[in-house]
Amino acid sequence: MRDATLAELALHGYAGLTVENVAERSGVHKTTVYRRWGGVDGLVVDALDLAGEDSWRPPDTGSLEGDLRGLADEVRATFADAEAGAAPSAFVAAAFHSERAAAALHAFFRDRHARSAVIVERAERRGEVPAGTDAGAVVRATTAPLYFRLFITGEPMDGGTVAQAVGAAVAAARAGVFAAGG
Amino acid sequence: MRDATLAELALHGYAGLTVENVAERSGVHKTTVYRRWGGVDGLVVDALDLAGEDSWRPPDTGSLEGDLRGLADEVRATFADAEAGAAPSAFVAAAFHSERAAAALHAFFRDRHARSAVIVERAERRGEVPAGTDAGAVVRATTAPLYFRLFITGEPMDGGTVAQAVGAAVAAARAGVFAAGG
Repeated sequence: MRDATLAELALHGYAGLTVENVAERSGVHKTTVYRRWGGVDGLVVDALDLAGEDSWRPPDTGSLEGDLRGLADEVRATFADAEAGAAPSAFVAAAFHSERAAAALHAFFRDRHARSAVIVERAERRGEVPAGTDAGAVVRATTAPLYFRLFITGEPMDGGTVAQAVGAAVAAARAGVFAAGG
Repeated sequence: MRDATLAELALHGYAGLTVENVAERSGVHKTTVYRRWGGVDGLVVDALDLAGEDSWRPPDTGSLEGDLRGLADEVRATFADAEAGAAPSAFVAAAFHSERAAAALHAFFRDRHARSAVIVERAERRGEVPAGTDAGAVVRATTAPLYFRLFITGEPMDGGTVAQAVGAAVAAARAGVFAAGG
């Protein structure tokens, strides 16, 4: 059912998602879909929850800059690919219309940020950033400018955009902006 | 008509916006609204275009940090106020559903970033940042973490969030991350 939902999201976006289409694609009767998933929101939430169960791990390149670069490149590559970017884009759109989808989207990012914290912990052990640096803040500073362009300003992204976002996060982290009392 | 559209957006959001409601609120017959504005998208685009015609100017506090802090505080204050934040939130949502609304939203941010460039030009003249610093990049670095929380991760914002975003943008700008060849 998750695959069917993701495929339909990729094709039609959240606004075009219907229980009928997901049911038809999955071969499950639509009354069963309504009974078990409740409707479109339930399908989206179920598909998004899957994201937190995957085996994703952040890059481990040996440097803070390399690791953040890997994270940012992943975001850029996902949304540069129309097929790969369709489902995540649909989830962001769904969050505007459904409290359940919003809660699932927010949980997805909490999970991703928590898993990414190790990047900053390693950097701290290597002495690249001050002790007590807020890992989530460093990760958010890296990816926020990319999501801002994707979903708010609609500005294009290129390698220079990614390098600037990574460079800014690294410079701020080194300067202690994200450290306790920084 | 713009006031009526903004009031209806604030009340019902983009998903609940109807030509009928805007027509009734404005006292204009709905056939006239359809003829002149084409429908919901046209009303939204018209209301958004207004934003580019206002007299908004960025803060001028005498320091880069103070000016960026003023910008960031304005974003935070707008969205912390349910009434003030309703229309801009609805515009972001509308951009997911309408090419015209997306184009108007993107034009709004281009205009705001262009008007904000003077902040960085003044900082350059004061010697606070290297020559050739990309003004738009500094402004985006300041506000992107706030919009990321508001519209993507759903995380709360407080004074600390704002201070961190401003501090990171200033540190990166001073380090030359946003300068030509930086």
